[in-house]
Amino acid sequence: MRKFFDPKSVVVVGVPRKTGAGAYNNVEAMINYGYKGHIYPVNPKAKEICGLKSYPSVLEVPQLVDLAVISVGRDRVLPIFEECVQAGIRRVIIVSQGFAEADARGARLQEQIVSLAREHGVRVVGPNTMGVLNNFRNLNISFGSRSVSEKVSHASLISQTGMMLWAPVRFGYQDWGKAIDTGNSCDVDFVDALEYFDSDPETQVIVMHMEGIKRGEEFLKTATRVTNNKPVIVLKTGRSKAGAKSAVSHTASLVGEDEVFDAAFRRAGIIRVKNGSELRDAVRALLLLQEMEGPRLGIITITGAAGIMSLDACEDFGLRPADIPPTLSQKLEEGMPDWLRIENPADIWPVAMIGGNFVEIYGKTIAQLLQSPEIDGILAIAYATSASDSSFYPFLGLIEPLQRYRIRQVITSLSPSGVIWKIQPLLLLSQINVNLSPA
Amino acid sequence: MRKFFDPKSVVVVGVPRKTGAGAYNNVEAMINYGYKGHIYPVNPKAKEICGLKSYPSVLEVPQLVDLAVISVGRDRVLPIFEECVQAGIRRVIIVSQGFAEADARGARLQEQIVSLAREHGVRVVGPNTMGVLNNFRNLNISFGSRSVSEKVSHASLISQTGMMLWAPVRFGYQDWGKAIDTGNSCDVDFVDALEYFDSDPETQVIVMHMEGIKRGEEFLKTATRVTNNKPVIVLKTGRSKAGAKSAVSHTASLVGEDEVFDAAFRRAGIIRVKNGSELRDAVRALLLLQEMEGPRLGIITITGAAGIMSLDACEDFGLRPADIPPTLSQKLEEGMPDWLRIENPADIWPVAMIGGNFVEIYGKTIAQLLQSPEIDGILAIAYATSASDSSFYPFLGLIEPLQRYRIRQVITSLSPSGVIWKIQPLLLLSQINVNLSPA
Repeated sequence: MRKFFDPKSVVVVGVPRKTGAGAYNNVEAMINYGYKGHIYPVNPKAKEICGLKSYPSVLEVPQLVDLAVISVGRDRVLPIFEECVQAGIRRVIIVSQGFAEADARGARLQEQIVSLAREHGVRVVGPNTMGVLNNFRNLNISFGSRSVSEKVSHASLISQTGMMLWAPVRFGYQDWGKAIDTGNSCDVDFVDALEYFDSDPETQVIVMHMEGIKRGEEFLKTATRVTNNKPVIVLKTGRSKAGAKSAVSHTASLVGEDEVFDAAFRRAGIIRVKNGSELRDAVRALLLLQEMEGPRLGIITITGAAGIMSLDACEDFGLRPADIPPTLSQKLEEGMPDWLRIENPADIWPVAMIGGNFVEIYGKTIAQLLQSPEIDGILAIAYATSASDSSFYPFLGLIEPLQRYRIRQVITSLSPSGVIWKIQPLLLLSQINVNLSPA
Repeated sequence: MRKFFDPKSVVVVGVPRKTGAGAYNNVEAMINYGYKGHIYPVNPKAKEICGLKSYPSVLEVPQLVDLAVISVGRDRVLPIFEECVQAGIRRVIIVSQGFAEADARGARLQEQIVSLAREHGVRVVGPNTMGVLNNFRNLNISFGSRSVSEKVSHASLISQTGMMLWAPVRFGYQDWGKAIDTGNSCDVDFVDALEYFDSDPETQVIVMHMEGIKRGEEFLKTATRVTNNKPVIVLKTGRSKAGAKSAVSHTASLVGEDEVFDAAFRRAGIIRVKNGSELRDAVRALLLLQEMEGPRLGIITITGAAGIMSLDACEDFGLRPADIPPTLSQKLEEGMPDWLRIENPADIWPVAMIGGNFVEIYGKTIAQLLQSPEIDGILAIAYATSASDSSFYPFLGLIEPLQRYRIRQVITSLSPSGVIWKIQPLLLLSQINVNLSPA
């Protein structure tokens, strides 16, 4: 599996001569993405593609390459695959569509490829795939240009669609570390990919997009083992009747009852997310935050309204507001208006109203909460106005206590760009927690 | 009510002499926001504030002003309110905190203000409020600077928190048209604000943030009438036990059983949203889209995976994929690979794979769907890669058919910045629809 993500040499069959917008030239895309290995384009009608010598067939490539990428019409795939086998190539990505996802003839063609591969010990990704992505090696096996990522995360993706590999799936400002679109999963499937990412030191969080599954039992066995080592997040689609039906023609996936998946995922320690927003939040939380040891949350807010929203959120997702001891309340109330009670959520807005030092009070409150044994995690609600009024950035108050105390608790900091919009990440934390530490 | 949003003159009591960052000088904030009316600062210790003559008391202001804004310590509010009454002022915003939301003494102070107001026909917003916002008149009654909005919508807000008025609540790139923070709602409350926005020609969509409610029956009666005229979206918080308890100390709101709210809202034709994301989606949809006449959705996608996700979404939210007649399928399949079936969702991705003109096919497919009597609305899934490859912007294919055909259907276009992340807006549409046109 490793060499799918780190091939020293690649032969690409079915490269158009055209380049630029609309050509979907995958050799051009690989070069632009900064791939450092050897690329051998195969196109019987071209002498040169993107400045590289082009070969009339796989058999004439002068080197035994690590990987072949095939993207030709479905009827030409099998003979080219045979040439790859003959050339001794052990890894093939079949981009082409029109196989088991399409019709009976496509299914037969796919079967023939699989038996040939098994017979000769060749591993196949696809067909019907956008291939693999490795942002640690500037490797992008897909047609269509993809801009090189400035920030790469240690979250890796196993997907049944190329869409998830592409631009839209970037979470926050980061990109996947590695990604694989298993497509029709005729050979390399979830189990293989999961095992690879489990052993991959560059992967900390594993994300899966799943429409259906073939080796169900083996997958769950593998996942149960992997989730003890690394978190696994699954976006399972085809939940609905219509969606399940459609999955058959998308990636030839047979989709079971959704409740069965729910239960099986839970047993295997998998975190299931329902949509893209939850997925993004979960990935971000798992990359950035530590695990909470319990459900007791201390909440500091500069708006009572958001405090109430976060209490609603606690109840929705199995967290609970910590009981703050009266002594802590008294400490927090020092310097506040006499009518003000600081409980949990600790709403320190009135401090601004009386002209107090907001940043200082925010910092002091966070510091007190961080030291309390009653609290497993802290939710810090804050925002910055759009103005350049930096005294109003209560987040500044976080810095000093975070530096001073060892942070054993999760801190979910709501971003400056939104308060209530950003409450969802907190919710996800709870879900993650429940899944990561089954009591 | 109108003059709260469009006062020709305002007296501001409790203005600090300090200006700039951290001063929370509301006169400075009003001036910076571009207010065109007269401002009379009141501060016994200052001769001049922000270049304006300052007065020692409300009684010495030489004009009968439309509106007074009071932000002083709670013990000084009542005497100043009495002076306002004496000066003949009929509208007062009390920013100060420490009233019914705080303790028994605060509750008594608030009662005294209310009886004085009733006696003299004075309307009061607050206490415990950030006041009002009118982006059509550059009016921002709140301390803390707020940058002037470049894009103003016709969505207006009624809130129990100033947080919602401020920067974080901007949806998309637009801002509220008008907004009011009713705070403790001692006098002006949801009913008053709802009636005002109902009759306000600058308001098309009414958004409410609600923690609790006082005149419940009157509110529902009013809302039932208003929702026949304009959509009303409510973000009701304090859903949880802990949240409900906390709402009492935030805005002195008594919160009832959440299920009761659910049922009452439904009867009144109110659209209830659960969180900020749903709220933003709902506002955007109601401002931009037309109402669907039925639940039958035609889906065009450039990724099978997103098609499946949208089918899941249909089931979640009461929409259903339209049955596409075979004749339409055949039309859509013209020029496609022979193994490809185009149904609903219409996945036209394979067109790119065979080098077809993506934009043209996208446009043709949308045009066919738009003409079909089987379809009440269209979901168009598309994205642009981050590259400058404009031939890959399938949305370009939308333009021509949209110009050519009268669009009686809702089109939810997923933004270039994300595919699966953006499926939620669609879901909201359904919810909106169910609420706006109860069958």
